[in-house]
Amino acid sequence: MTDLSRIIQQARGLAPADLVLKGGKVLDVVTGELLEGDVAICEGTIVGICGSYDVAREIDVTGQILVPGFIDTHLHIESSLVTPFEFDRCVLPHGVTTAICDPHEIANVIGPDGIRYFQDAATRCLMDIKVQLSSCVPSTEMETAGARIEAADLKPLMGHPAGIGLAEFMNFPGVLFQDPGVMEKLELFRGQHIDGHCPQLSGNDLNAYIAAGIRTEHEATTAEEALEKLRKGMRVLIREGSVSKDLHALAPIITERNSAYICLCTDDRNPLDIAEYGHLDYMIRTAIELGAPPLAVYRAASLSAAEAFGLKDRGQIAPGKRADIVTITDLAKCDVQMVLCGGVEVTDAAFAARYLIDPVGRHSVKAPTVTADNFRTAGNREDTDVIGILEGKIITEHLHEVIPIQDGDKRPDPGRDLIKIAVIERHGKNGNIATGFVRGFGLQHGAIAGTVCHDHHNIAVVGADYEDMALASNRLGQIEGGFVVVRDGQVLAELPLPVAGLMSLDPYESVRDQLIDLRAAAQSLGVTLEEPFLQLAFLALPVIPALKITDRGLVDVNKFEIIS
Amino acid sequence: MTDLSRIIQQARGLAPADLVLKGGKVLDVVTGELLEGDVAICEGTIVGICGSYDVAREIDVTGQILVPGFIDTHLHIESSLVTPFEFDRCVLPHGVTTAICDPHEIANVIGPDGIRYFQDAATRCLMDIKVQLSSCVPSTEMETAGARIEAADLKPLMGHPAGIGLAEFMNFPGVLFQDPGVMEKLELFRGQHIDGHCPQLSGNDLNAYIAAGIRTEHEATTAEEALEKLRKGMRVLIREGSVSKDLHALAPIITERNSAYICLCTDDRNPLDIAEYGHLDYMIRTAIELGAPPLAVYRAASLSAAEAFGLKDRGQIAPGKRADIVTITDLAKCDVQMVLCGGVEVTDAAFAARYLIDPVGRHSVKAPTVTADNFRTAGNREDTDVIGILEGKIITEHLHEVIPIQDGDKRPDPGRDLIKIAVIERHGKNGNIATGFVRGFGLQHGAIAGTVCHDHHNIAVVGADYEDMALASNRLGQIEGGFVVVRDGQVLAELPLPVAGLMSLDPYESVRDQLIDLRAAAQSLGVTLEEPFLQLAFLALPVIPALKITDRGLVDVNKFEIIS
Repeated sequence: MTDLSRIIQQARGLAPADLVLKGGKVLDVVTGELLEGDVAICEGTIVGICGSYDVAREIDVTGQILVPGFIDTHLHIESSLVTPFEFDRCVLPHGVTTAICDPHEIANVIGPDGIRYFQDAATRCLMDIKVQLSSCVPSTEMETAGARIEAADLKPLMGHPAGIGLAEFMNFPGVLFQDPGVMEKLELFRGQHIDGHCPQLSGNDLNAYIAAGIRTEHEATTAEEALEKLRKGMRVLIREGSVSKDLHALAPIITERNSAYICLCTDDRNPLDIAEYGHLDYMIRTAIELGAPPLAVYRAASLSAAEAFGLKDRGQIAPGKRADIVTITDLAKCDVQMVLCGGVEVTDAAFAARYLIDPVGRHSVKAPTVTADNFRTAGNREDTDVIGILEGKIITEHLHEVIPIQDGDKRPDPGRDLIKIAVIERHGKNGNIATGFVRGFGLQHGAIAGTVCHDHHNIAVVGADYEDMALASNRLGQIEGGFVVVRDGQVLAELPLPVAGLMSLDPYESVRDQLIDLRAAAQSLGVTLEEPFLQLAFLALPVIPALKITDRGLVDVNKFEIIS
Repeated sequence: MTDLSRIIQQARGLAPADLVLKGGKVLDVVTGELLEGDVAICEGTIVGICGSYDVAREIDVTGQILVPGFIDTHLHIESSLVTPFEFDRCVLPHGVTTAICDPHEIANVIGPDGIRYFQDAATRCLMDIKVQLSSCVPSTEMETAGARIEAADLKPLMGHPAGIGLAEFMNFPGVLFQDPGVMEKLELFRGQHIDGHCPQLSGNDLNAYIAAGIRTEHEATTAEEALEKLRKGMRVLIREGSVSKDLHALAPIITERNSAYICLCTDDRNPLDIAEYGHLDYMIRTAIELGAPPLAVYRAASLSAAEAFGLKDRGQIAPGKRADIVTITDLAKCDVQMVLCGGVEVTDAAFAARYLIDPVGRHSVKAPTVTADNFRTAGNREDTDVIGILEGKIITEHLHEVIPIQDGDKRPDPGRDLIKIAVIERHGKNGNIATGFVRGFGLQHGAIAGTVCHDHHNIAVVGADYEDMALASNRLGQIEGGFVVVRDGQVLAELPLPVAGLMSLDPYESVRDQLIDLRAAAQSLGVTLEEPFLQLAFLALPVIPALKITDRGLVDVNKFEIIS
């Protein structure tokens, strides 16, 4: 922590401030005013505003508006497909100075060692990364993950300086039905921050979930759902990820009245979207475009987030707060010009000066070698459960279609947009393979496969052709996981993700370029989804309604049971 | 804590709720809506709203509005002149379910034992009393207190379940000038809650005071002062005490925009005012009368206060929160009908069931016996510094009057409203006596004296007659402290306060009646002040501008030095 004596000296102007931003206007996220005057900084701490200060070092921000650094209140860094260090380098320049992450993707593959990797990396990034402890690994009992984390495993991970309570409690049925392992975790974190995840839960069951001590939640997809959660004491984290896009539906609730109780988050966002659209900066400008008052939006992105998570040291450009400051030229555009994070100016040199640590989770793909026959679906009933994709959402529809049985198999029927989906266990546990049908990809040929497959991160593969599905799946074993697009026995594009089958070893720019190639390859198969790889990844997540698939079979999430 | 399993069962409606409030409407201090439906409570915890619940016990609140229990964010219970248990019984029925107190009055008389008494009492009251640790005992080096509390004395008091950081840091010059004892306390509580007190501080000095880690403040007396503190990251606690009345000046800043960052407090309020006007209920109805939006006012009185002090378990009528609920029939009137505190219905029986502890600090008045001659003021200069009272404020004016010297003494001149004031050390330390002049009482005869004399709590006496001043002072020794009104050698009225010379052993109703007699007796002397006893008490507080008096002499607070 910055020396208190230096802070007071510099704040009073008795010694030159280490750094002074001169000529800008500060957006006060409390009163809504634009404040004139110098912003003085001592090491990592803001010590003065609205004053005039002598300087050791000055940055001229004439004509710019200074807003508090943005706080992403819930995300999985793994979804950026790069390491925490590359995430830092990719997202911090967008003004995100604090990211509250849940490392449950890597935890599902390699267990507590994955959480420790994030804790270690967090202290070495420029961005202030907070690491919540993953609450639901695996997310349910209806899947095979690479690891299982119980309350006893979480205990030694508590008390880390980057810690901030328990991460999204996805197993909401486990809370409602008082599963003993769930209760043990809730008791362990009682009185601390427990983040939530309860899509479409309402009424008395929502009361129970919140009463169990869960404070924040990011799964509301309609204004009415968000308002019920707000009324019942939750802080609503509005999400705009690469797949789950809730901002348009929820922007109307970002009012000055509510804004102290609303936050922003990205949950899962890939580097291509970050490059093309931005990160929280994109959410801010979009929310304003949608009519939300700028004060309310910037407050939600900073002070409200800090308050929701008890981070009393940030969220406003004010004395005593962390020097997390973003400069822009226009509130509506949120065109980030410069970022200060903990008093450090965000530059290539600052990133280069970080002390990196080696990634973990190599050689994690231990799937059986599959053949075309593995994708045949036996059965005597032509009425078939089909997963219906809703573009831009991770919830799905539970459809029913008649699919004829030919030679003891139900074949893909691309003409009706009915293709085969399979999930293959890849942690070396049991080699499970489950198959089913999905509608919504538009895929006409070949296959797409990936090891990013929430949250168990087995292999998910979709295709119109069994041989191509087998090739795509087997190729993932050779490249240590990632994404593959195959057609007619050829790999058209691929992105290796050797860190737990989730993250690349490459710089984010290279990952972005490879994603562009992958997306083009997918389109060449007829795929119409904007984000086919992440959309595929969420088809395996059995805590999001309505119909999902894991290595153990099709899951009716509303009934919370495997149906075939 | 309430059993988590019972909470979930009752919230879901699988077991009858322990208590259900039926037929009322809940004011949601987040969205501003009035919500229909049952409020279900399990032991001390709200488990359900907006639902329909089976009940073990029901309270019919048809036609009433339910608002969250009020939180007084800064007060000295000693100023109610009764013990914490009587304060509880007096104030909780006004809807104040949480009181964040600073026991620095008793700490100035008997030291850490006084703080421990409040910590012990806090756990035995119905109201949830939070006890901050007193930061400035004595308030300055310009007074003789009964005790001195250093950082080392505070350390063993930390970690108490009723604790909530460090109390108002009144020695703001000590912060600015980095007094070593002050720095030690700031370091000890770094990152924890530190409450502030910095009247009229602004500019870079205010920056420094806040940057030192001080989060909340209640001394703003103008909207401009409050807004500067808000802009600079402080939470502003608007105060309406028996003497310091800031609500009229600050009501305009209670807007929906600001309200999440504004709280209410009483600081010092006597039982007569509580009986005549109310407590936070009075502040709420007055703020609304003054034009503040009801949502903003109720939010400030509850959720904003909880958030400002990190009390995540209260502030809204919502699942998982403490069952602190007040029912009223009219938002504007704030006419409290029923109070639930931690799930307990506030009744005479509930108060009677408390386990009380014995008071401390008996026989604390150890002043020298004084005579009329002790009140003579020597000096060769007729130009005289005079304390000018501003009614309803604890700040004073620094006046200058020509007072002729007769027989080596400057005599009181009631015709010009210039009466004598003296402060007599009463802790048995040194027997100091200082004299001076004050304008504003209107007193024409006799004398008034008291041992409530902030914060050192020596004897303060004002009078037009030296014999009466001596009698009043000496009488305080006989009754173990309190207030006395004397005229023509007769005690007209008195209120003994044997607990540290600050608190009565009587029920608050009796104290209230005695205060009525005292007030009438004071008026019979010509006193025109509405609140002469507390106004007198604050003339001795050398951390409030401009001119004050202690046992060591007249203090120019702006210069922070003794001037005569």
